[in-house]
Amino acid sequence: MNHFITLENLDLSLIEELIDDAISFKKKKAFPNLSNRYVSNLFFENSTRTKLSFEMAEKKTGMEIIYFDAESSSVKKGETLYDTVKTLNSIGVECFVIRHMQDRFYDDLITKIDVPIINAGDGCGDHPTQSLLDLVTIYEEFGTFKDLNIVIVGDVIHSRVAHSDAKILKRLGSSITFATPDFWRDSSMTMGTYTSLDSAIQNADVVMLLRNQNERHSKQYDEKNFLDLYGLTKQRANQMKSSAIIMHPAPINRNVEIDGDLIESPQSRIFTQMTNGVFARITVLNYVFNS
Amino acid sequence: MNHFITLENLDLSLIEELIDDAISFKKKKAFPNLSNRYVSNLFFENSTRTKLSFEMAEKKTGMEIIYFDAESSSVKKGETLYDTVKTLNSIGVECFVIRHMQDRFYDDLITKIDVPIINAGDGCGDHPTQSLLDLVTIYEEFGTFKDLNIVIVGDVIHSRVAHSDAKILKRLGSSITFATPDFWRDSSMTMGTYTSLDSAIQNADVVMLLRNQNERHSKQYDEKNFLDLYGLTKQRANQMKSSAIIMHPAPINRNVEIDGDLIESPQSRIFTQMTNGVFARITVLNYVFNS
Amino acid sequence: MNHFITLENLDLSLIEELIDDAISFKKKKAFPNLSNRYVSNLFFENSTRTKLSFEMAEKKTGMEIIYFDAESSSVKKGETLYDTVKTLNSIGVECFVIRHMQDRFYDDLITKIDVPIINAGDGCGDHPTQSLLDLVTIYEEFGTFKDLNIVIVGDVIHSRVAHSDAKILKRLGSSITFATPDFWRDSSMTMGTYTSLDSAIQNADVVMLLRNQNERHSKQYDEKNFLDLYGLTKQRANQMKSSAIIMHPAPINRNVEIDGDLIESPQSRIFTQMTNGVFARITVLNYVFNS
Repeated sequence: MNHFITLENLDLSLIEELIDDAISFKKKKAFPNLSNRYVSNLFFENSTRTKLSFEMAEKKTGMEIIYFDAESSSVKKGETLYDTVKTLNSIGVECFVIRHMQDRFYDDLITKIDVPIINAGDGCGDHPTQSLLDLVTIYEEFGTFKDLNIVIVGDVIHSRVAHSDAKILKRLGSSITFATPDFWRDSSMTMGTYTSLDSAIQNADVVMLLRNQNERHSKQYDEKNFLDLYGLTKQRANQMKSSAIIMHPAPINRNVEIDGDLIESPQSRIFTQMTNGVFARITVLNYVFNS
Repeated sequence: MNHFITLENLDLSLIEELIDDAISFKKKKAFPNLSNRYVSNLFFENSTRTKLSFEMAEKKTGMEIIYFDAESSSVKKGETLYDTVKTLNSIGVECFVIRHMQDRFYDDLITKIDVPIINAGDGCGDHPTQSLLDLVTIYEEFGTFKDLNIVIVGDVIHSRVAHSDAKILKRLGSSITFATPDFWRDSSMTMGTYTSLDSAIQNADVVMLLRNQNERHSKQYDEKNFLDLYGLTKQRANQMKSSAIIMHPAPINRNVEIDGDLIESPQSRIFTQMTNGVFARITVLNYVFNS
Repeated sequence: MNHFITLENLDLSLIEELIDDAISFKKKKAFPNLSNRYVSNLFFENSTRTKLSFEMAEKKTGMEIIYFDAESSSVKKGETLYDTVKTLNSIGVECFVIRHMQDRFYDDLITKIDVPIINAGDGCGDHPTQSLLDLVTIYEEFGTFKDLNIVIVGDVIHSRVAHSDAKILKRLGSSITFATPDFWRDSSMTMGTYTSLDSAIQNADVVMLLRNQNERHSKQYDEKNFLDLYGLTKQRANQMKSSAIIMHPAPINRNVEIDGDLIESPQSRIFTQMTNGVFARITVLNYVFNS
């Protein structure tokens, strides 16, 4: 039994194995059998995409889902996360997928709960299954991470994805560039260089857009002119190498981070990322039970 | 693969076939097998009855349901309906049942999404599975639509059901009368004549009541006296032919549209309609995949 | 077919049989087969624990769950509980588990609906599956109810559990003591004597704590000093017999009703209660269909 909390502490060889597994599940359409295992998805922050991607992965492996609704839960009667998890575990839930607004919400759980805990996003911290699906998508495209130019664009400071992806991609040998407005730079992120999108785009292998996390912004920014100033316009996209790809973790603010017409353009892998997310999560479910 | 958007464009022969199928599924208790197909029900307007009727139909055909909660969805982060559907489709959802407040919400979807879209109610427009279950209920009773006197009572102007049913029943040879208060007449509806319930009731074969859609009313009306003035009282029900039936799409405002004692009276088919709704929806699921 | 509404009217021999069944299901991990039966859980008051315990029991017996969301239901369009249940029954739901804020919400249903109704908590009234799981937990520990000293502690007046448990345990031969602050005494409860926790604890076989039901209190009480004045501190716990056990229906207000460190102490059966809840509910589902 394993937890799955972050990619940071995992050996590169294990990460490469997980990527291989995901691609193999996708190709063969044959999945590990986890039937008669009960899982619950505890999403204390809304994320339809991630939640339903996990549910699809759980169903495809034959798991039984106990549906938990954070809104109506006893958390509002003063119950701690630990008590909620311990309660569900006593009822028979054998695996927990958790998204929570608190950084490192899992510290307590992984020492006290002896069934798998899967991190589906902790605060401004980590989001390791999103990172894994990004890795799967890049590896599926290029067959390597070595010396790829990854340009991460936009709201870096508020993005779990930016943090997690930059760290792991650097470890895997890619070169990271942040193309972000000055007001969203994150001085703690030293794994890449900072520049403008205009400077970075011609050499990019991967243009990795982020969502402007409007709900986390304390200051207003000029959303109307954002696309022209900092986003992926058609003009900028035209400067991309023909082999380069466009990624975005979604949901997308159409015509803010990216021109709407580019979302399903030939170089976009945005919906491929979503498809790969299911296979990445099947891989993680298999890992926590069977490794 | 078909979409199922409205009855308007369907041949009468196809509609008659769908009615036959529904009645046959009901009699034989044997259903088409759609197992291992993933479906999602996207209800942007609440409708417990329609939603759970679809879920029952989906379960009875062996489909796997991916539960979508509109309230907590990314629509609130600025995502379009198309992006939501495309996302779920990328995740592996192979059929969408959608209720949406916008008329013709489906125009965009049916040209761009290549899995079945089923309309479970669009704005003040159409509600074709409700119409189909109404047709099933009437046909099960009378064995024909030809020359039946259908009296549609009440809040005609705000009712999807009134619009859809009147159109298709007229095509099938029935005669339509609207018995509605002056303030709820819909001058655009020319498929029937307008009169009072008192004038129409004696010749009715079907007394089709509607729900007063209080949430769509800009002006108050006199709810307290509504039953006596415009609703189905026991006195009026006594004037019905013995072969005539009472229908209502529900939910019912008891003692407003209809005297509460009549809801389960021998001439009422109100709960039969709900039962038939499941078979009508099984028929539609079979149609979109297997026709 | 049976309803399951309260333990009050059931013969003691039947109750003892249900307890035996639950313990047997727990030991053998073999459950009755209720597959292809459709059940719906109608929770008009939130209770994650009870609801998910029922869902686990339903899944373990192979039942199909039709998920009902009270928040978005037609109850808000003016529909009565009876009409909601009759509607779902018409759609094909064959068993209803209901929690409702109204005492004896079920009176109407059990005479008119001919599929099983299971009471999952009615107003300030009864909560018979919670009582059954409490009985299972006590019997599993002591092998008898005869002459056990049951000390019920805390918010007696607002607690369904206190009412139901006191009545049935007295019938089964236990001796009941209420250790409760003066302001939460319930003069109508004559099945036990009133005293302080300090006086009662040394002779207790079962220290049955209750949750302070803050959402039902009209007056504020001193929550900060509650533990020291009336709750289960470590000091008080030290005075318990070594054979005595601690119970709590949960959710727990940590360090209010009980010192947090005692929740998972060797004498605590709090999480055992939750585990037993699933087997108690499997027993009830079996009872309503197969007795």
